[in-house]
Amino acid sequence: MRTPFQTIAWVDGHVKMLDQRRLPGSVDYLHLDDAAGVAEAIRTLAIRGAPAIGCAAAYGVAVEARRLRGAARDDFSATLAHAFELLAGSRPTAVNLFWALHRMRAVWATGASDPPATIAERLLLEAHAILAEDVAANRRMGDLGAALVPDDARILTHCNAGALATAGHGTALGVIRSAAAAGKRVAVFADETRPVLQGARLTAWELQQDGIPVTLLPDVAAGHLMARSRIDLVIVGADRVAANGDVANKIGTFPLAVLAARHGIPFYVACPLSTLDLSIETGSAIPIEERGREEVAGYGAETWAPDGVPVFNPAFDVTPAELVTALITEAGVVRKPDRASLRALVGSP
Amino acid sequence: MRTPFQTIAWVDGHVKMLDQRRLPGSVDYLHLDDAAGVAEAIRTLAIRGAPAIGCAAAYGVAVEARRLRGAARDDFSATLAHAFELLAGSRPTAVNLFWALHRMRAVWATGASDPPATIAERLLLEAHAILAEDVAANRRMGDLGAALVPDDARILTHCNAGALATAGHGTALGVIRSAAAAGKRVAVFADETRPVLQGARLTAWELQQDGIPVTLLPDVAAGHLMARSRIDLVIVGADRVAANGDVANKIGTFPLAVLAARHGIPFYVACPLSTLDLSIETGSAIPIEERGREEVAGYGAETWAPDGVPVFNPAFDVTPAELVTALITEAGVVRKPDRASLRALVGSP
Repeated sequence: MRTPFQTIAWVDGHVKMLDQRRLPGSVDYLHLDDAAGVAEAIRTLAIRGAPAIGCAAAYGVAVEARRLRGAARDDFSATLAHAFELLAGSRPTAVNLFWALHRMRAVWATGASDPPATIAERLLLEAHAILAEDVAANRRMGDLGAALVPDDARILTHCNAGALATAGHGTALGVIRSAAAAGKRVAVFADETRPVLQGARLTAWELQQDGIPVTLLPDVAAGHLMARSRIDLVIVGADRVAANGDVANKIGTFPLAVLAARHGIPFYVACPLSTLDLSIETGSAIPIEERGREEVAGYGAETWAPDGVPVFNPAFDVTPAELVTALITEAGVVRKPDRASLRALVGSP
Repeated sequence: MRTPFQTIAWVDGHVKMLDQRRLPGSVDYLHLDDAAGVAEAIRTLAIRGAPAIGCAAAYGVAVEARRLRGAARDDFSATLAHAFELLAGSRPTAVNLFWALHRMRAVWATGASDPPATIAERLLLEAHAILAEDVAANRRMGDLGAALVPDDARILTHCNAGALATAGHGTALGVIRSAAAAGKRVAVFADETRPVLQGARLTAWELQQDGIPVTLLPDVAAGHLMARSRIDLVIVGADRVAANGDVANKIGTFPLAVLAARHGIPFYVACPLSTLDLSIETGSAIPIEERGREEVAGYGAETWAPDGVPVFNPAFDVTPAELVTALITEAGVVRKPDRASLRALVGSP
């Protein structure tokens, strides 16, 4: 199953990305030729989803290096170092961003005395590798996760953990796609996901493109659906998983996990290994981004919040590991994730 | 503390009501002179909140009877009976609507052979009584409930259970108002309450008018606030309470109750006795209204859901009695409400 859009790609020496701020009304692409443009695209949610912003950061470095490939080494180095900072400062919670920048920095470090044009080529190859590995990881997660999806499953998901959130196929939606491709009937319930409405604007649209049945609901209605026995499983993505298995994901994920536990409904998290951050002990140490008032106060030309009323707008919350039925990664499915099983998964001592 | 607006009133022979669809942008009043207009105002949420729609239904009958006061008895009776049906069909979940219509019908029945003009006067007096009793009940609930609010309380509320949802003062917000009036410092966190945004448009506005500190948040962020120990108590209103203490209230209430229980946070429900429906054994038998796609698909001139994607839009959910710390009514505070305590409260055998 191939989606009829491309979240991010390298085309003719620039970064091409689908402008997700304009979906579903317009399918428009951005063409970016420097790191500042890519950082701005990440910050303003033109591209979002932990794996996708990892790819975007990598290409942000690559496109900046290409732009500077004719510069003197000192200029090249100083400007490229600044690009890393810009990209690292674009969003704080999803660890894939820092993971990708770490890989790019390591590639730069291995041949820092080579000519800028050589370094630029090497960085582009690494960005290509990050993208290709993400697609492969999503396909593998899809295959592994599809085994957890019963036929006729009614599946609740939150935010968008689809092809739009990755280099392709998707994490949570990748599992659903793979289950559907394997011939299982599925019906998806998509939380609209306030305040930025990624569920309504992106997940509903993405599944509609694929012909997978999807029903949109306000986030507040998920508990009622579960109480009426109309959900068989919940599956979401992740922005960062701590060493103990705690999961930071889109705000509203934690309440779903609590509700799923109350109703005995499996709660699955699908994410690539690049989302694991074993350097952070527990979820309470994961930085939680707080975003602007305007996301909550209205939409487009409409404003509904009274002037002068302050807004609390955290973009993520933390789901304790105890509420996660299984973590689905490209290296395997980990039931009841904890410190030991996650260390074993990534092969660290 | 008096609010600078009037939710519903009888003025110069017609029903005057604040058009809550236009808040907070415009403070406009409707002037209605027949039952059909009142039923339409209830159906389209110009007036909403269980106690307020009880009052509206009563005045809907009264204004229709006044309109018909010069008619022949048969015409009067047939048209008034039709008005009862129209009003009863306007919304299904809040029991106050049926409770108020039941009172009005009983007044009509006691002197059905009197001249229409006499019946019309009697019905108007009953509507006035229902309104006055609601204000008095809210004040009493406020006093009783304020004792449960600690100083410096950080209070989470959902939807609007304020002066706008009642004849005045409010149920949940009435408790907060009374606590503030008693000198307690309070900080309110108001869930925006998708899809109709009563928290953003009404609660935030109403509390701002009163100078009570209020912060607006997306519904999905309530769990994160609780997990970070930033909420001391939750208080909401109700649309119908079953004999066993199960509470139907605005969609999204049940998840809050589950989250409050997980975090050991008291969960209070403030409602007048007119919201109790001892004829229904448990919450599962309470009819849950499902509303239109357009409420979820966009707002005003903006649409964000893709065309053709179906929407699930239940307006209420049911919170099991076990999750209710206490029910606050004008007849007393009932901790851990159940069948026996609710029967004792209303004095039924």
